[in-house]
Amino acid sequence: MFLELDGHGPHYSQLTRAMKSAILSGRLAAGARLPPTRVLAEDLGVSRITVLTAYEQLRAEGYIVGRVGSGSYVSTSQADPMPPRRTTPRSIAPLTRYAKRARQLADWSITAKHRDRRLDMQYGRPQVNPTLGAIWGRELAWAATHTKLDCTNIQGLPALREQICDYVARRRGIRTSPDQVLIVGGTQQAVALTSRVLLDEGDEVALEEPHYFSASQQFSAHGASLLAIPTDHEGLVCSALPKQAPRLVMVTPSHQFPAGPALSLSRRQELLSYARETGCWIMEDDYDNELRYDASALPALRSLDGDDRVIYVGTFSRVMFGALRLGYMVLPEALCGDFINAKYLCDRGSPAIEQAALAHFMEYGGFERHLRYVTRELGARRRELIAGLQQHAGDRVQIADSHAGMHVTAWLPNYDHAQVDALIADAHERGLGLYSIAPHYRKPPDVPGLALGYCGLSRAQLQEAMQLFGECLDAVDAAAAQPSAAARRRQA
Amino acid sequence: MFLELDGHGPHYSQLTRAMKSAILSGRLAAGARLPPTRVLAEDLGVSRITVLTAYEQLRAEGYIVGRVGSGSYVSTSQADPMPPRRTTPRSIAPLTRYAKRARQLADWSITAKHRDRRLDMQYGRPQVNPTLGAIWGRELAWAATHTKLDCTNIQGLPALREQICDYVARRRGIRTSPDQVLIVGGTQQAVALTSRVLLDEGDEVALEEPHYFSASQQFSAHGASLLAIPTDHEGLVCSALPKQAPRLVMVTPSHQFPAGPALSLSRRQELLSYARETGCWIMEDDYDNELRYDASALPALRSLDGDDRVIYVGTFSRVMFGALRLGYMVLPEALCGDFINAKYLCDRGSPAIEQAALAHFMEYGGFERHLRYVTRELGARRRELIAGLQQHAGDRVQIADSHAGMHVTAWLPNYDHAQVDALIADAHERGLGLYSIAPHYRKPPDVPGLALGYCGLSRAQLQEAMQLFGECLDAVDAAAAQPSAAARRRQA
Repeated sequence: MFLELDGHGPHYSQLTRAMKSAILSGRLAAGARLPPTRVLAEDLGVSRITVLTAYEQLRAEGYIVGRVGSGSYVSTSQADPMPPRRTTPRSIAPLTRYAKRARQLADWSITAKHRDRRLDMQYGRPQVNPTLGAIWGRELAWAATHTKLDCTNIQGLPALREQICDYVARRRGIRTSPDQVLIVGGTQQAVALTSRVLLDEGDEVALEEPHYFSASQQFSAHGASLLAIPTDHEGLVCSALPKQAPRLVMVTPSHQFPAGPALSLSRRQELLSYARETGCWIMEDDYDNELRYDASALPALRSLDGDDRVIYVGTFSRVMFGALRLGYMVLPEALCGDFINAKYLCDRGSPAIEQAALAHFMEYGGFERHLRYVTRELGARRRELIAGLQQHAGDRVQIADSHAGMHVTAWLPNYDHAQVDALIADAHERGLGLYSIAPHYRKPPDVPGLALGYCGLSRAQLQEAMQLFGECLDAVDAAAAQPSAAARRRQA
Repeated sequence: MFLELDGHGPHYSQLTRAMKSAILSGRLAAGARLPPTRVLAEDLGVSRITVLTAYEQLRAEGYIVGRVGSGSYVSTSQADPMPPRRTTPRSIAPLTRYAKRARQLADWSITAKHRDRRLDMQYGRPQVNPTLGAIWGRELAWAATHTKLDCTNIQGLPALREQICDYVARRRGIRTSPDQVLIVGGTQQAVALTSRVLLDEGDEVALEEPHYFSASQQFSAHGASLLAIPTDHEGLVCSALPKQAPRLVMVTPSHQFPAGPALSLSRRQELLSYARETGCWIMEDDYDNELRYDASALPALRSLDGDDRVIYVGTFSRVMFGALRLGYMVLPEALCGDFINAKYLCDRGSPAIEQAALAHFMEYGGFERHLRYVTRELGARRRELIAGLQQHAGDRVQIADSHAGMHVTAWLPNYDHAQVDALIADAHERGLGLYSIAPHYRKPPDVPGLALGYCGLSRAQLQEAMQLFGECLDAVDAAAAQPSAAARRRQA
């Protein structure tokens, strides 16, 4: 019997591998008797223990049968000597309605493709505090030795839920208890759980037009039917909500995303009355309320909700960093149990160490210090961006300034969509990542616009970016001033 | 106008709060004209800037209207002075079929209720390495300063996926590439994603009988139709699988949970042939393969799967600690895209720092050292448990020893279910947490049994636990020897 040992690891495992290979390739046929252990050991120059251990292992795995003493035989049901022809194609039709709908959604990696632009103005890259990594590392190290590692809490660590109650009371005017707080893996998961708890396939969800597209992707994949409700300078136009209420209305009251306005007080009351009268639920996505520059944050819609119909969602991914994946929900009492069930079934609870680190960070003031740093720094970047826009683009752009958040919306009323697409393409060529506001609309807006994120760039980079932006605008203007070659040919 | 400032925070926010309160309580009526800023500033003894800022804030929130100079008025649409009567009840009927099914599941906090037993033999409490917290804290601190914090990777950090490829090749015989590995938040999330990708409501899933009950809870909540397929000493009885194949067969080939046997080679081939012929998919839950004490680990079913129909699931929560919430899937090529979509929609990817820490821990040998420690320590505890069982329970129990995992199954063939329930209740009274194997069966097994987890107790505690166990058994025997009072009354 030829058995080649491959020299890796202990002798018995080399021998086991070699014999398996001989059996699977058919060199040792089904039913064949194996040599006695003593003989094989002498043949191979290994100890008899080695051979006994290998035979034991092969027996445990079913490759051979029989007992030491009465002889061992290759099992008659060992693996097919030839690997079976692969019959599964490399791509198949989706197996579920969910998978099918998910495949039809926009490719969410599109924006990531531009990440190599030197000056990238993508919305929502929040890591602006250069010392945060080291500070956070210390918090994690502390938490790893101060957290019970062997159990999870579905709803989230009580210490963190308490900190969040204090935080939303102080900054958002929300009075709640830790029992109504659920820790989740970011806003995305909050929307996923809400889909599970509130929406069967075909149920209706009303979204603002425009809105953050990943929310509509989520609801679409889940099979909900989407209604787009217009917004204006006071936020959601509540009078446009249908008489027959949807199951859920999702809003961004603090800072309409991405257009900018806050939902006015009268609209807030109108929306809450609508929910009370129709029995629909409201999801308040309070994604960047922490970041306000010229006025203090508006209190949350949830703080006015005497009827307990608002599902409030906050996230730490924006003010801390995207890779953290921690957010929280303040839930209506009637839905708490169902949300906890859904969270259990989704992942049994979020990782405990990061929760403990965050609770500690909040309790001892590190989080507030970080927030102050970020607000000061982003405020300065925002001023730099607006100054640069005014200097280099002048009245060619209309700035929709919201005094909040991580981006400025710049409308381009003198240009058409094709020109703005050309502008974006040209800017990308020159290393400047610009992004249209259109993907956040279900129907493109009448006027083209850009969502200019200013978190990822320093002040000096923002100056440079705005200068480049002005040059790109100049190029579009120049192209418009002289008829294109094609147009000239047509004229000829 | 009486305005009481509460002394917390800057003057302008105290004033804003006080005025809101006056407006909401009706003391400042809708339409009322506010005093000019200069007058109010003098009245209150604050600067005019403070009053201007407060008015600006109230205007932004819609509490007042008008402009500086022409006078400010309380908005006619301010909040109702009386809070609305709460119309939402505190508990409601479930809103979706999913929420309804989830409510009907067993209460998953039941076992947690016994956590205060001094000697708790619950299955699956894995934190046995006392130095792991400190080691892991150092890894996290390192990772926090060596990870890109502002972006997430849906599929998981490439460095970790590469380490996992090496790991499953070395220990499980699986050849795969990082492209087919998906990082998930533990086995629970793997099952949740599998439900989304493979199962519409009503689709069939075959599970082993017995099986880990959280898998069947997950599939039930999702709305799948469950088939229980019997197991014997070779694992799943493949001949009992239906001709009309289910969409998915979920198995624990390395170590049938909780009964113990490994799936034999011939059964593995039978199952793979079944999948090939019927087109069904297999989920291999390899939940504790790392822990083997007398023989090396069996290679994974996935390693024999030439047809790419096995979804392999591994977890770090058992060998590291439960609060980690990290696991991985090795996916069939045809399903990769759909699983990545589902992961994106669920939470956009797992937290990056813990992934980076784990990749580093694996790359530099820390993980293997930890595994060796855990295997040695748990092996010793397992021997202690078995010796104690033999000493104190003798032939009253049959030990189904699997040489693997974190628990030993003890069958009690001489007792009926009522007696074992009494035994468990008595043990809990004495501070010994025992757990029946029955919850893992859809129909209670013919013979009652206990799943004895030995991870949470030291060797000395296991000795004590087994002595107590023997005493509890003695008590049941004594009760059986003398007819109960009730039986005597009946006889009288």
